[in-house]
Amino acid sequence: MCELMGMSAKLPTDICFSFSGLMRRGGETGPHKDGWGVTFYDGKGCRTFKDAKACADCAIADFMQSYSIKSQTVISHIRKANRGKVGLENTHPFIRELWGRYWTFAHNGQIKGIKKKLKKLKESHGLRFQPVGTTDSEAAFCYLLNRLYSEFDGYPKNKNRLWTFIAELSQDLSTQGVFNILLSEGKSLFSYCNKELYWITRKAPFGSATLKDADITIDFQQKTMKEDVVTIVASNPLTSDEKWEKLNPQSGALFHAGEIVRRFSHVPKKLTEPVQTVA
Amino acid sequence: MCELMGMSAKLPTDICFSFSGLMRRGGETGPHKDGWGVTFYDGKGCRTFKDAKACADCAIADFMQSYSIKSQTVISHIRKANRGKVGLENTHPFIRELWGRYWTFAHNGQIKGIKKKLKKLKESHGLRFQPVGTTDSEAAFCYLLNRLYSEFDGYPKNKNRLWTFIAELSQDLSTQGVFNILLSEGKSLFSYCNKELYWITRKAPFGSATLKDADITIDFQQKTMKEDVVTIVASNPLTSDEKWEKLNPQSGALFHAGEIVRRFSHVPKKLTEPVQTVA
Repeated sequence: MCELMGMSAKLPTDICFSFSGLMRRGGETGPHKDGWGVTFYDGKGCRTFKDAKACADCAIADFMQSYSIKSQTVISHIRKANRGKVGLENTHPFIRELWGRYWTFAHNGQIKGIKKKLKKLKESHGLRFQPVGTTDSEAAFCYLLNRLYSEFDGYPKNKNRLWTFIAELSQDLSTQGVFNILLSEGKSLFSYCNKELYWITRKAPFGSATLKDADITIDFQQKTMKEDVVTIVASNPLTSDEKWEKLNPQSGALFHAGEIVRRFSHVPKKLTEPVQTVA
Repeated sequence: MCELMGMSAKLPTDICFSFSGLMRRGGETGPHKDGWGVTFYDGKGCRTFKDAKACADCAIADFMQSYSIKSQTVISHIRKANRGKVGLENTHPFIRELWGRYWTFAHNGQIKGIKKKLKKLKESHGLRFQPVGTTDSEAAFCYLLNRLYSEFDGYPKNKNRLWTFIAELSQDLSTQGVFNILLSEGKSLFSYCNKELYWITRKAPFGSATLKDADITIDFQQKTMKEDVVTIVASNPLTSDEKWEKLNPQSGALFHAGEIVRRFSHVPKKLTEPVQTVA
């Protein structure tokens, strides 16, 4: 299994502290030694650092800890390979452009039969998005995007409909295995949990926090402005002295500008295959 | 105007030496201070380092010079903004997935009317690929990919037809301005020149070379194996004591495993708009 970490912030925020904890799980305090990646959005653009090496043992990851990159939306992942060999093409996060926006995805879990599902979609509707690597995760991401592309004419004005559809698709995929994900189009951070995912929102008055995986304590009051609002989502709490909230299994959450803005629970609708041609 | 640099190599090769020269033109010996980027392919995967800052003054670029990343195909770009504001979304190279491969593109020049051309294509056929930023370069890249997507059912077995079509499209676009480009799907490096582009192939017996823009000399014999074959393509020769070949204006070249494998000159066919629906 892999580990996920995401951030949604009101103002551009440096994720070094949380990343320092996560990277130690990448081969040092945890077994996730088969690659790591972080995507930082900056306006409509984004940049990704990734490597197929263990994060705890990687010069690029080391560099990133010393170099403060500020962002409002971050998705990060450390990998313990299950499906798909160790290689850059199989390293999360995965990115695709849809409707003139970069979509970023990272997954923890395994989805049975996803390649078959994607093949079926290809035969009936064609595939706009195809996996480059061989993971079930990238196949699931492509499946999601192909379904989005056939459902909407463009980036919908009605964001409720967009994220509800994504939550429904996530619930549908989660019936085929373990599907804990982070997904973003740059503005919002969506997470779906069918097993384990935690989150915490930090805002004024700020306290201090100590990492679980490294002997590092931070006094947020020294490092923040009073307007800051930052949410961190992670597979496991990263700090030992803060109260993290657990997402309910089979539920989703949408974060925007550092705060939770919607929850998706018990999505009732049973999704059928799309009837519209992918065009 | 911007500067391009690309590499095609038989064996995974470190591009630090050439990049050291190029990055000095990014705000030090040259005026290209509005961003820089480098994409390294690694198998089917790739990774991109980019920043909207001047390359000569950027910690990430500094780090990259000290950290040897080996690759067989590299595309790099330093930017002097003409169209599109300075920002990460407007920083080359641009990347999109098509047919389960990552395509990477960088452009030097300006293309008039490309957004109108793309809009026309959108109205008649829909757009699979849309720009995220506001440069004419990314619009031209999206135009190319949309045309490829409608021309072929998938990554064609007949590579000759693929690259000939790309050369024809490039010639067509070059009539609307300056269109010096580097393009890759990971395996091959394609370049089109309608103004200025140079290339050099280094292979055994290796000599030494001195950068034009920095006081650095390298003895390739000390740094290479005798099997190495490496081609560098650049907007301007990077070394002062080697013989660089100039690509003819209105011509293309295809490099594979370090060597030139095809030239495209005086492409006769006049391209019309596509008749097939982008589906």
